[in-house]
Amino acid sequence: MSLKINGLDDLDLQILDILLKDSRTPFLEIARKCHVSGGTIHVRMKKMQDMHIIKGTKLIIDNSKIGYDVCGFIGIYLDKAKSFKETLEQLENIKEIVEIHYTTGEYSIFIKVICKNITDLQNLLMNKIQSVEGVQRTDTIISLFQPVDRSLNIDILNSEH
Amino acid sequence: MSLKINGLDDLDLQILDILLKDSRTPFLEIARKCHVSGGTIHVRMKKMQDMHIIKGTKLIIDNSKIGYDVCGFIGIYLDKAKSFKETLEQLENIKEIVEIHYTTGEYSIFIKVICKNITDLQNLLMNKIQSVEGVQRTDTIISLFQPVDRSLNIDILNSEH
Amino acid sequence: MSLKINGLDDLDLQILDILLKDSRTPFLEIARKCHVSGGTIHVRMKKMQDMHIIKGTKLIIDNSKIGYDVCGFIGIYLDKAKSFKETLEQLENIKEIVEIHYTTGEYSIFIKVICKNITDLQNLLMNKIQSVEGVQRTDTIISLFQPVDRSLNIDILNSEH
Amino acid sequence: MSLKINGLDDLDLQILDILLKDSRTPFLEIARKCHVSGGTIHVRMKKMQDMHIIKGTKLIIDNSKIGYDVCGFIGIYLDKAKSFKETLEQLENIKEIVEIHYTTGEYSIFIKVICKNITDLQNLLMNKIQSVEGVQRTDTIISLFQPVDRSLNIDILNSEH
Amino acid sequence: MSLKINGLDDLDLQILDILLKDSRTPFLEIARKCHVSGGTIHVRMKKMQDMHIIKGTKLIIDNSKIGYDVCGFIGIYLDKAKSFKETLEQLENIKEIVEIHYTTGEYSIFIKVICKNITDLQNLLMNKIQSVEGVQRTDTIISLFQPVDRSLNIDILNSEH
Amino acid sequence: MSLKINGLDDLDLQILDILLKDSRTPFLEIARKCHVSGGTIHVRMKKMQDMHIIKGTKLIIDNSKIGYDVCGFIGIYLDKAKSFKETLEQLENIKEIVEIHYTTGEYSIFIKVICKNITDLQNLLMNKIQSVEGVQRTDTIISLFQPVDRSLNIDILNSEH
Amino acid sequence: MSLKINGLDDLDLQILDILLKDSRTPFLEIARKCHVSGGTIHVRMKKMQDMHIIKGTKLIIDNSKIGYDVCGFIGIYLDKAKSFKETLEQLENIKEIVEIHYTTGEYSIFIKVICKNITDLQNLLMNKIQSVEGVQRTDTIISLFQPVDRSLNIDILNSEH
Amino acid sequence: MSLKINGLDDLDLQILDILLKDSRTPFLEIARKCHVSGGTIHVRMKKMQDMHIIKGTKLIIDNSKIGYDVCGFIGIYLDKAKSFKETLEQLENIKEIVEIHYTTGEYSIFIKVICKNITDLQNLLMNKIQSVEGVQRTDTIISLFQPVDRSLNIDILNSEH
Repeated sequence: MSLKINGLDDLDLQILDILLKDSRTPFLEIARKCHVSGGTIHVRMKKMQDMHIIKGTKLIIDNSKIGYDVCGFIGIYLDKAKSFKETLEQLENIKEIVEIHYTTGEYSIFIKVICKNITDLQNLLMNKIQSVEGVQRTDTIISLFQPVDRSLNIDILNSEH
Repeated sequence: MSLKINGLDDLDLQILDILLKDSRTPFLEIARKCHVSGGTIHVRMKKMQDMHIIKGTKLIIDNSKIGYDVCGFIGIYLDKAKSFKETLEQLENIKEIVEIHYTTGEYSIFIKVICKNITDLQNLLMNKIQSVEGVQRTDTIISLFQPVDRSLNIDILNSEH
Repeated sequence: MSLKINGLDDLDLQILDILLKDSRTPFLEIARKCHVSGGTIHVRMKKMQDMHIIKGTKLIIDNSKIGYDVCGFIGIYLDKAKSFKETLEQLENIKEIVEIHYTTGEYSIFIKVICKNITDLQNLLMNKIQSVEGVQRTDTIISLFQPVDRSLNIDILNSEH
Repeated sequence: MSLKINGLDDLDLQILDILLKDSRTPFLEIARKCHVSGGTIHVRMKKMQDMHIIKGTKLIIDNSKIGYDVCGFIGIYLDKAKSFKETLEQLENIKEIVEIHYTTGEYSIFIKVICKNITDLQNLLMNKIQSVEGVQRTDTIISLFQPVDRSLNIDILNSEH
Repeated sequence: MSLKINGLDDLDLQILDILLKDSRTPFLEIARKCHVSGGTIHVRMKKMQDMHIIKGTKLIIDNSKIGYDVCGFIGIYLDKAKSFKETLEQLENIKEIVEIHYTTGEYSIFIKVICKNITDLQNLLMNKIQSVEGVQRTDTIISLFQPVDRSLNIDILNSEH
Repeated sequence: MSLKINGLDDLDLQILDILLKDSRTPFLEIARKCHVSGGTIHVRMKKMQDMHIIKGTKLIIDNSKIGYDVCGFIGIYLDKAKSFKETLEQLENIKEIVEIHYTTGEYSIFIKVICKNITDLQNLLMNKIQSVEGVQRTDTIISLFQPVDRSLNIDILNSEH
Repeated sequence: MSLKINGLDDLDLQILDILLKDSRTPFLEIARKCHVSGGTIHVRMKKMQDMHIIKGTKLIIDNSKIGYDVCGFIGIYLDKAKSFKETLEQLENIKEIVEIHYTTGEYSIFIKVICKNITDLQNLLMNKIQSVEGVQRTDTIISLFQPVDRSLNIDILNSEH
Repeated sequence: MSLKINGLDDLDLQILDILLKDSRTPFLEIARKCHVSGGTIHVRMKKMQDMHIIKGTKLIIDNSKIGYDVCGFIGIYLDKAKSFKETLEQLENIKEIVEIHYTTGEYSIFIKVICKNITDLQNLLMNKIQSVEGVQRTDTIISLFQPVDRSLNIDILNSEH
């Protein structure tokens, strides 16, 4: 049985799956792989963009090769749980923060950061994150090595057309 | 002063910055923005791909809109610290795992997973991750809400050409 | 030897045990099982209700089948230990909270909640529990699977009549 | 808008809500409250029992009044995460355990227990739970006081008929 | 209302209270304080010793003044929870251990130790406690200063005779 | 070699050792065991009391037999580390607290308490300890079983006279 | 390949390595070992001092032999993460603190201290560190035994001249 | 009153204090500061070296300026507490480890390491420390910034001669 979430059919999912693997795949190649016309791909893409299923694209680069050597995760404890919203607004302005999560467990906020080096991380923690009003303390771990970084792999159980 | 990491010049960094913001930007548009020819962009892109600075592309989709509602982070404790490599190989085959990190702190391995729902997460933990030889126990947190998910923002201090 | 707590005899305990297994058992059936008259059952039930031993009844439903998919436990840390009473009053008004405990260990308050889904849990945490004055932070775990949910099984060592 | 989960309509939800508040409510009284015939209630109850939405009933008693004074929660760590299933089978046979959960966070298994007193809890931990093959260690908290113990409160937004 | 635990009356409790404050109080002085004869005190003492209510006596000395400077508490984690009994037998033979508790919380065993100095504590941990079969790891805290060390203060609400 | 701490000789230590084992041992029996006169024992006892080496005596009773069933340890976290002294003064007035320690590790204060039952412990925590100004939160463990409770065993290496 | 960090060549590194092993090595002996003149050593030393590569020298003594028996590590939690700088200034004036680190993990500040004995450590914690404005609480561990205390061992891969 | 530990007098302590501040101070300068002859200094130094009070010397360098950027602390948990000695022997051979401590708290072993960079730390953890037989897991924190690194400051209360 194929997924019927949000009225998406297998063709939609197949297009997403191809683009999740390589977002630069030309539409004509997608069309050929899916045995439909290029116009159909355009229609489907537009529909999925209008539905905000497709939110944009991301180039995957080797951060360490352009001088960004340190990736870390930081659990943030707030002074008071209820200051979440004010704190979030300020964190959004810190450009080294690439992900912000509101999670289960004991952290108020859990973020992912990318920095140039250890001195840059120290500066980020001391002068940016810990200067935000409402941040009581932080718990930081550094990724020393990241063997896997890949996209979601969509389950398509039925792709006949 | 501009970055000189790996012999990259400001043009290279500017190209990366444009593509990090939208990986589908046509090369001609990149060329126009950088005041160089389309051919130059092709040359630079090829160089950065050959140097493995550019590793691929990633489509950003709203996972919950295609039925993937649960994003979580799992800290893994191993039976013995030295079984890291064998465990890693098996984890790489589990498709719900999108990131694997070797980190400071107390976890042996720290991963990010994307699942359809809570039952899917239970199945992932119980029948996949915890079945891997060497995994002693896990510590899981679920992202209930993710207000920020964005790319690295490259510092380009000097972009005259 | 049979329990003599609160002046209860074995007949009382036997009635409780039958009703703990199925609270809808008709009184006549209870009477037959206990080799006493239906009137006796009524007298005993009234006594146990008057003594507040029997506090009410509860229908056991499969929460996930009516759209309540997420059951969780939340440890609450207060700003100051002494604000327990004020905080308790506000928590009592939050309908997703089905149990509130004051416990040993490190939490000030430990609660059980039932929500529709992850978004509902996020809303519960962020806009209800963490908005309560005095709540400093929370530690949440989610039940992914609950294979056992049953009543207390009373020890009745002697049930001759 | 009313819930349409599993084909349930508002009448079904209204019946559940009445019974969640008092599982001994006579069907005729439910019928009167819902403005339908007693037969309709019987039909709906049978449907919800056949769908396993209604799993049974539970008498709520004051455990401390019949000599069960200690309620606790125990986080269980296993020797190896993958021995979950074997351990679960043995835990199911321990009658003091009233709930077993498989949870996020750091515990392998999280349970709720009801005992007569502290000596009974010591016996439960030392001679029953910690004797189960695969249990490495436990983390126990005791409920010293439980001001709230109530059923799920169903949201019924539209109950016109 | 006076306590009636174990058939003890107020005279018994009053005798205990006097002896808890100073275990060397002569029986005649106890008799005078309680307005009874010395013979009565002997009878009551014998009864309470026979009932094992009075287990012995303890001299309170300033440990640091005889060269025992370090008092600590050690939480012990076992390899497997079920090896508790074997481990306990071996711990009982270590003379620096003055209290052994089986507790709630995360430790398998919680003990109190008194040592001469830090080198003695190192020796106790490394060569005695951590050499016991079944001990996986320990968590030690040292008492740097102990402002209060006193006996239980019995509640006697009614001491008329 | 015998200990020479504080000018104590082996006779002093031997007297202490006898009294640590049974504080009610008559002085004449101590004298006989030590091969000295009763007067010598009196002189030495007075010296050790004057030096505050002997601080008093303690009757050892079976607390649970007089209705004190619950022994626990509580780690206290303060609002601010520097409010230690003010908090200590208030804790000294709570009679259920039999030991107060200032320790290494993460607690500000670590105490031992003895209560009648779980309700008494709840009352102690909620209405006494957590009401003390400066107490932010507590971490409580309960002793479920205490197989060892004994005095320091003095090393006397040379006891010839 | 030899290190080229900061324009240092192998001779510089060799000089550092000899002095890291014994900082009192006479310059003439260093010169002989490196097959260069004493003048060269002086020139290089001056260069490395001017570059602040060489910051000074340290005598290694057995602290316990001069009465400093207790070495400990203290994790400090601040009231608010942003009070780091003010707190640091005050900690710098406490002479028992020999190292101050700003670290990943959960501590705001991590320090190493050397004290005479346990009473001295109690005084340091209670009257000095915990009296600093902004310190919320501390987590202390004591080194009971330190089998290794040595200098960095520089990698010199190529030392031909 | 001056320290009399190990028969050291104030002159010895004064010499130590001068050398702790700068281990390269010429003996003649030490002699002049202490108002004694150079020969006396030689005699005292030899005595303190023979007593192993002076264990050696250490050059203080700015590690980051020679390419050693990462300083960290690692708590090591062993498989079994009793494998401490075997593990210690292997850790002693790892040159990045500059301090090894046996501590209170929950770690079996606590070490300080100095590495070139994050990749070097990953290699140290994964291929050296975690490969040691008996190491179950590690908990690592990285020093991002170290504002204080200094010697013990000896208390000399009386230095008249």
